[in-house]
Amino acid sequence: MNGPQIERLIQLLGRLPGLGPRSARRVALHLLKKREALMQPLSAALADAANAIRPCGSCGNLDTIDPCSICADPRRDNGLLCVVEDVGDLWAMERGRIFAGRYHVLGGTLSALDGVGPEELNIASLVRRVAGGSVREVIVATVDGQTTAHYLAERLADSKVPLTRLAHGVPVGGELDWLDDGTLATALKARRAL
Amino acid sequence: MNGPQIERLIQLLGRLPGLGPRSARRVALHLLKKREALMQPLSAALADAANAIRPCGSCGNLDTIDPCSICADPRRDNGLLCVVEDVGDLWAMERGRIFAGRYHVLGGTLSALDGVGPEELNIASLVRRVAGGSVREVIVATVDGQTTAHYLAERLADSKVPLTRLAHGVPVGGELDWLDDGTLATALKARRAL
Repeated sequence: MNGPQIERLIQLLGRLPGLGPRSARRVALHLLKKREALMQPLSAALADAANAIRPCGSCGNLDTIDPCSICADPRRDNGLLCVVEDVGDLWAMERGRIFAGRYHVLGGTLSALDGVGPEELNIASLVRRVAGGSVREVIVATVDGQTTAHYLAERLADSKVPLTRLAHGVPVGGELDWLDDGTLATALKARRAL
Repeated sequence: MNGPQIERLIQLLGRLPGLGPRSARRVALHLLKKREALMQPLSAALADAANAIRPCGSCGNLDTIDPCSICADPRRDNGLLCVVEDVGDLWAMERGRIFAGRYHVLGGTLSALDGVGPEELNIASLVRRVAGGSVREVIVATVDGQTTAHYLAERLADSKVPLTRLAHGVPVGGELDWLDDGTLATALKARRAL
């Protein structure tokens, strides 16, 4: 009834996390009312980001440059490598400004149920990075229980590099991205041997 | 920390209704992960809709053609004119398929508090349409209490065209867009003289 352009827009907006069909319609209408102030800038920002942003070949972070700005930053400690599930978790760590090492983004966690095996994750590249010799400690910041952490401990055992995990305080099954910075800082400081 | 493209995208997404800073970040990340399947199509859909969609010069509906497809549809009854606050309310009426007349979108409701006077709304064009002579009944489907409805009754008194309002069933102060179609259909059928 609304014409194909509006229906297509509502359909795509409804695929964003947290938006259902009704909220997608509200968002579409809001955008159509703010065509110049919001709709056109958002379209351009999406195209810009889609064109400019690429995964970092080293750590898996998303950035306009490869290696990403974190991998390229000479002030960061090469000896500390924090393994996260997702770029959103990397963002959460960075928001807290509590960590000045490097990251490695796995791209998920191991899950037999979802058919996610080691080949689906950036684990081979992690093993290579750690084998490179400059890493003193690997901090496993995944929060999926212990499956992924135990698997990483096995795969990295030959390197003799100590693995640690975030301290208790991180809720089991929760998402790093939703934690407040204080809890995250406490958990990082109290990390323990794996 | 994320580069200007991502920050700009998060900032614009955070201005959409219902999205705060955290959900804007989640949406941005989701889009960056689904660059080809969702991000680029959404950018194009926003640009297409922004270019193609214009307000109808007759009723204020949003469409790709002017007069809009509702105003241009010869099967609709010119004698029934439904006055709504917003295009979202017109969409709600159309979803219910309960009304086969024409619409007039005011673009808001009168509010001394918000400085919205009659000049800010599409009221002069409504008076002209009703004065045109083909309208038999004006259904005032605004839900802001009675301020706007009473003002419209005054302005349209000379036309002698009867005004009706939606029956009780519409929650006072609620939004038409959030009603289920059944409630809306009941309210339309039970409309009363203003």
